[in-house]
Amino acid sequence: MKLYDGGRAPNPRRVRIFFAEKGIPLPELVPIDIGKKEHRTPEFTRINPSQRLPVLLLEDGTALAETIAICRYIEGLHPAPALFGGAPKEAALIEMWNRRIELGLFSAVSAVFRHGHPAMAELEEQVPEWAEASREQIDDHLMLLDLQLGANRFVCGDGLTVADITAGIAIDFMKPSRIPLPEDFANIRRWHGELSARPSWKV
Amino acid sequence: MKLYDGGRAPNPRRVRIFFAEKGIPLPELVPIDIGKKEHRTPEFTRINPSQRLPVLLLEDGTALAETIAICRYIEGLHPAPALFGGAPKEAALIEMWNRRIELGLFSAVSAVFRHGHPAMAELEEQVPEWAEASREQIDDHLMLLDLQLGANRFVCGDGLTVADITAGIAIDFMKPSRIPLPEDFANIRRWHGELSARPSWKV
Repeated sequence: MKLYDGGRAPNPRRVRIFFAEKGIPLPELVPIDIGKKEHRTPEFTRINPSQRLPVLLLEDGTALAETIAICRYIEGLHPAPALFGGAPKEAALIEMWNRRIELGLFSAVSAVFRHGHPAMAELEEQVPEWAEASREQIDDHLMLLDLQLGANRFVCGDGLTVADITAGIAIDFMKPSRIPLPEDFANIRRWHGELSARPSWKV
Repeated sequence: MKLYDGGRAPNPRRVRIFFAEKGIPLPELVPIDIGKKEHRTPEFTRINPSQRLPVLLLEDGTALAETIAICRYIEGLHPAPALFGGAPKEAALIEMWNRRIELGLFSAVSAVFRHGHPAMAELEEQVPEWAEASREQIDDHLMLLDLQLGANRFVCGDGLTVADITAGIAIDFMKPSRIPLPEDFANIRRWHGELSARPSWKV
């Protein structure tokens, strides 16, 4: 297996953290420099026509794209610890929270970065109005996460799941997106401090 | 179980089609009128703080939101036919395509509708520039789907999966979003005709 990696970009990091939380070594990394548009070359487009990172290339030549699809594949090969849950209800609640955060907070922070950050002007057809509208929604998304973390050690209960990885990455991504985390989200701060201290978070 | 339903909206319909493809009866439906903002009432917000439909309310009071989380729960209770796949690689490829279509085509069509359709002005803080930018990306997303359907009867091979339901709903949603499907996407037209003739598509 080879992992086409995108360095500091949040989705490649989500996959590397997932491997680390599973306790399994990373496959051979193939670095792709997004800043140099290496994800838009004809060679890479043949691997992933969506021109996105990361991609896991399997031994049989199958190119597996989409962060969560890669994580699920790894979970299928290495079921423990179960980061997507076990029984139907537990698995569904983890899926719900992973999606709530991904389609809510993570998506809004990404929109602020991609459509608002000067460094992205080269890479995106920026729509500054969309960056602004997304920025205005972030507090609502943070509030939902903070409430959940007020009642739970991790997003879905006592143990870390893929929903924590997605949420932690979204909070981390606020920094380069120049979005401050308001002081009053104390539950997010407590949980994010705990996440950041885990060995997986250094990958 | 009760299903809080949103009528013609695409995500509630995705869940109803999923039930039909599983061959299991729908739970009791609780109609929520999005046009009348019934999904924003305090009562409904207690059920789903994200104020979105559909929601599956379980017997123990758990409110399960997010379309794909609901579908996975149903798949957990009724494994056959396996609409999310079985073996790790197959399940990962279905997840990849479901996400590619959901985060690509479906998301772009939704943005055109929500941010561009006059009927949505009451419900959304519309960003017309985002509707326009999303509209411009739709042909690329359609091209990717058409290529895949040129090589496969269904999105992920010979059998229908959740990725077909997401993709079919996205194509259907182009009509109220006033986005024509160009004539030259013949593979999409062939497949969409086949989907639309299935009994599940009438729900």
